[in-house]
Amino acid sequence: MKDFESTWRYYRQRIESVLEDKFNSNEGAPTNLIDPMKYVCLDGGKRFRAFLVYACGELAGAEMAQLDAPASAVEMMHAYSLTHDDLPCMDDDDLRRGKPTCHIAYDEATAVLVGDALQTQAFSTISEESDALISPSQRIKMIAELARASGARGMVGGQVLDMEATGCRVDFEHLRLTHELKTGALIKASSMLGGLAGHRHDEVFMKGLEEYAKNIGLAFQIADDILDVTRNSETLGKPAGSDDRMDKATYVTFFGVDESIRQAEHLSNTAIEIIKGLGDNTEVLEQLAYFVVTRSY
Amino acid sequence: MKDFESTWRYYRQRIESVLEDKFNSNEGAPTNLIDPMKYVCLDGGKRFRAFLVYACGELAGAEMAQLDAPASAVEMMHAYSLTHDDLPCMDDDDLRRGKPTCHIAYDEATAVLVGDALQTQAFSTISEESDALISPSQRIKMIAELARASGARGMVGGQVLDMEATGCRVDFEHLRLTHELKTGALIKASSMLGGLAGHRHDEVFMKGLEEYAKNIGLAFQIADDILDVTRNSETLGKPAGSDDRMDKATYVTFFGVDESIRQAEHLSNTAIEIIKGLGDNTEVLEQLAYFVVTRSY
Repeated sequence: MKDFESTWRYYRQRIESVLEDKFNSNEGAPTNLIDPMKYVCLDGGKRFRAFLVYACGELAGAEMAQLDAPASAVEMMHAYSLTHDDLPCMDDDDLRRGKPTCHIAYDEATAVLVGDALQTQAFSTISEESDALISPSQRIKMIAELARASGARGMVGGQVLDMEATGCRVDFEHLRLTHELKTGALIKASSMLGGLAGHRHDEVFMKGLEEYAKNIGLAFQIADDILDVTRNSETLGKPAGSDDRMDKATYVTFFGVDESIRQAEHLSNTAIEIIKGLGDNTEVLEQLAYFVVTRSY
Repeated sequence: MKDFESTWRYYRQRIESVLEDKFNSNEGAPTNLIDPMKYVCLDGGKRFRAFLVYACGELAGAEMAQLDAPASAVEMMHAYSLTHDDLPCMDDDDLRRGKPTCHIAYDEATAVLVGDALQTQAFSTISEESDALISPSQRIKMIAELARASGARGMVGGQVLDMEATGCRVDFEHLRLTHELKTGALIKASSMLGGLAGHRHDEVFMKGLEEYAKNIGLAFQIADDILDVTRNSETLGKPAGSDDRMDKATYVTFFGVDESIRQAEHLSNTAIEIIKGLGDNTEVLEQLAYFVVTRSY
């Protein structure tokens, strides 16, 4: 059985190094842009999305080298969304992953442009990969998937739904859809991008990856809602209770802590059952599903 | 000889209708996002970039239907950049194309997200085009070109250089590079995307398109610098003298109005000579090069 901790460590080290290379290859770009792009995107975060690309990709039979571009693309996309979410006109957060947010460490204009350029680089990273490593046809599918997950029908759409809910009473369906779009879509896309890099493209396999990712994506978000009320600022690296402060609907405000935990565990178990059905080497993805609901950060 | 005015009118009508269809096809996206996306991207602007895609594409032998996706992608990319440029933390402009900017008509958070989603949709529009219309290999090249022109090595990089120059003395090389990245790169990409959709991919032809676009791109920007000091607010739809107000270096502050006009005309003439060498049906592109330096808006 593959060791979960060492696999994760390997994926994290690999993605850090790949990301650093990608940022350093922006020849002709101003240092005043590349430095803050590195600031928000390097040395931070769980790399949960890159993990999914690598692990789902390996399950699909892809080589690690084929997974570097999609893995860095999803991490750039995620980092861009955090940078813009933290802006004063959005969530107005000063702290992220235990360090000052981009608009605090630099300034607001830089934070806007850093997010913009990170999004662009997510797409250039996949489009500029060599044909020999990933075919144009595979890369175009990856880009379509990533774009669908990130724009108006995905992450940005979810952010708008989230803003609509602030200070209002919304129904549960609104909350469910917000989670699905705001965080679920990119998590799902991470699995799919991994799958697309491999050679197991049969419908059952790709559908299995999608369902696995949907379940852990929602479990991840419910766990976030729970952590937000149960952990302190130091562990999280962001102000605890910030959702509550903003008067936002969460799983916890709808169902309470105990029932939210139960639902997250159910989703995690469902994900484990699904992924077990997809092959013989699914241990790290099973353990990721377990980690998602047991993590303390 | 093709009539320039009627060709432009046709391209404009076509791109408006294509863009509207693309925005309406965002199934599942929140109305509170799609409406302001339409607000900033429909019924406005010269559609200079779409013109380049269509006209260069036709010259390269592409069908109009093959050019709709790249033409709408460059217009979405342009609209996103304007929306973010207008933000209070950037140029802080209240008026654009004669109407309130996005953060004035809606709010600042919406303007950030609208720009974000427009950028994403530029990439999804090309990636989701059918294989039968434009091959995956052509689309991947288009996306790589568009991303290179838009990110840290292009438009966003140019915006950072532009910010660096505000309130400082910069040398002419800094100004030239700012123009090349901030506006030139996307104008060049528009020509190249048109060319990539066609079947004339020989190096001489593509290099010719690139050089043509480089020349009119810079001429366009110099004309902008000139218009900024010579025209009044009503004609421009934005506050005249806004560059001067921000104490920014422009061609006019370096060379004065007369010499700037001379340089713009030289670039325009060079572009006309280049495009004439690329085929028998280059009239509209010749006239576009002429228009760029004679326009009053």
